[in-house]
Order: sequence, then C-alpha cells, then structure tokens
Amino acid sequence: MRYCPSCSAVLERRRPDGDDRDRHVCPACGTVHYQNPKIVVGSVCTLGDRLLLCRRAIPPREGFWTIPAGYMELGETAEAGALREAWEEARARIELDGLLAVYSVARIDQVQLLYRARLLDAAVEAGPESLEVRLLGWHEIPWADLAFPTVHWILRHAQSLRGRSGPLLTVGNPGGHQPGPLPGELHVED
Amino acid sequence: MRYCPSCSAVLERRRPDGDDRDRHVCPACGTVHYQNPKIVVGSVCTLGDRLLLCRRAIPPREGFWTIPAGYMELGETAEAGALREAWEEARARIELDGLLAVYSVARIDQVQLLYRARLLDAAVEAGPESLEVRLLGWHEIPWADLAFPTVHWILRHAQSLRGRSGPLLTVGNPGGHQPGPLPGELHVED
Repeated sequence: MRYCPSCSAVLERRRPDGDDRDRHVCPACGTVHYQNPKIVVGSVCTLGDRLLLCRRAIPPREGFWTIPAGYMELGETAEAGALREAWEEARARIELDGLLAVYSVARIDQVQLLYRARLLDAAVEAGPESLEVRLLGWHEIPWADLAFPTVHWILRHAQSLRGRSGPLLTVGNPGGHQPGPLPGELHVED
Repeated sequence: MRYCPSCSAVLERRRPDGDDRDRHVCPACGTVHYQNPKIVVGSVCTLGDRLLLCRRAIPPREGFWTIPAGYMELGETAEAGALREAWEEARARIELDGLLAVYSVARIDQVQLLYRARLLDAAVEAGPESLEVRLLGWHEIPWADLAFPTVHWILRHAQSLRGRSGPLLTVGNPGGHQPGPLPGELHVED
C-alpha cells in the first residue's frame, strides 16, 4: 500500500496520535488506512463414511488437496461463506453441523473458521478453482499431499470425532502452535 | 476506495475474469483490490461473581457500555488479540477460558470472536478508549445502555452459563438472526 485509496497522495508510515503502532496514514486527507487479518471459511463435508476433498487448480499449492474453503466475502455471514465455498469449489450442497475449529495463522494474517458439514447428496464436481474433487474414505486421505498445515489439523481433528454425535466443542490451534510455511505457499503482500 | 493503493490510478468497479462479483480493479497495473470482513476479538472477563464492563470514550456509541473488544491486528492470533484488547481498554490482565461465540454482523462486515476469560486480579482501570471501567455484579448490568446488540447477546449467553464449569460450546448468532443498527452506530465506508 503506497498511495491513498481515498485521494491518491503518497502514504506515510507513522503512528497516529493515541495509537500504539505504525499505520498507513495519508498526509493530504488525513485518513488512516488500517490493515487487518482476513477470514477464511471452510468445511469438512461428509456423506456417510466418506469426506469431500478438492485438488487445487490455482496457486498457492496448486495440485495439492484441501477442503472447500476460501476468503469470506463482504455482506455474508461466516456460515453463508462456508456454504458458498462448498458450492464454488465442489458444486456441493451442504448443511452445517457445527464449528470444528478457529485457527489463527498469524504469519499470513488469517483466521480460519472451519465447520463440520453434511453433504446433501453425492452430486459433486470440480468448480473452476479445483482440478478434481473426490469423496474419499478416511483411510484414503492423501496426508502427504495436503495443501496447507491447517488442512492437516482439521482433518485429524474431524477424524478424531468420527462417529461421535452430540454438540461439537470448537478447538483452536493444536497446542497453541503456529503452523510453518509449506513449499509454494507464499504470502503476497497487499 | 477510489485510487489504486499500488499505483494511484483511478480504480474501476468491474468483475474480473473468472470471478462472480464486482471488485475494485486497477486498469493501469491490473491489481484486484479485494475487500473482506474484519474480525473483532473480545472477552467477557469475570472475577468471582463480578464481570468487567467498559464505558466507551470514543464513537460509535460513546458513553455506552461494552466488553473489552476491538479489531484484531495483523501478526497476532485471535487469542492474543483478546488479551491485548482487555489490556488496552481496561488495563486488565486476563486468562482465556474458551470461545463463547462467533457472531457474524453482515451489515457492517464483521465477525466477532468472543471469549470467556478470568481476570487475574481486580486491578483494572480505564484505558484511553474508555471513560470508566467497572467490575459489576450480573444483576447490575446496564442492559438499556449497552453499546451494541452483540454485547447484549454475549452477556445474556455468558449469564446463562454462570456457575457452569466444563467445556464451552461455542455458539453463533442467536436463532441465526442478524442484529439491527443502533442509534449512533454508523458504518464508515472504507
């Protein structure tokens, strides 16, 4: 961020009065341009004993496997975002069952809200951001070819809850850990 | 957002190839400037039978009561953000106990992650964004003078869990409802 989105002046990096950290501040119009973490919404979608995975058609981590998930959009709820992502990435119609986890990935300024969901039917197919989508048994999960550390986390967690009904206890990062970067998983600066 | 933060050209509002909604797109450098909901982190902080409330010193809803909460910052986890807000607004040192609720307020593009916390001691005082802070009994909550609908929601929810120990079940918006706007609670466009 180099220019003011409100007036096009060159921004300064400085601490506004009363603030405790540096921000992008416009010396012309005075606007402070805050930057904040983004929310990823997604879901572990099951149909009986199988779960839905998507192979990514786009960077980062193209060709690796993930659950349907993506950036939450303006004007929607987190739950609506998770439904939208399941449709966009796998043409999957789902019903949410509870919030499995809230993961913070500080290095890339993300908070991930990951739900458990039931597929309403087996009719899934690759959306534009997926190379292929599959309904796999839990023993068929390609652990070595998952796209992101948090996909690993959430699948292990969902697996541990297999067959257990009743209310879901939402978890945070396992052990409070931060996930490390993976090859090809670059953070693009805004 | 009128000018490109990367190159200062006047932005266009149009649908990028392969996208399904309009974005701010720069016709000069080609950058798509996505806008996403923001995360608010906060906590219901208790010490024995009392809970911590802060009277806001800043708009929106100046003079009304809230829990310590605010926008999550870059580079922190959600949990660290909740601790930071308790310190900034009430000089409170707290220990998180679980995630009470994830509320989506689509109208103002917010997701609120609200924790339950224990105050480590009674030494609280107003930070720069609070007119005053108080440790109140549950029967002393100023229900008519709360700053936001979600403060109402979370206090009712925390109150319903009073004295119940054990794992916390994280809830979403009550009944899936969206809160309405309150007087003076304006949404400022970026």
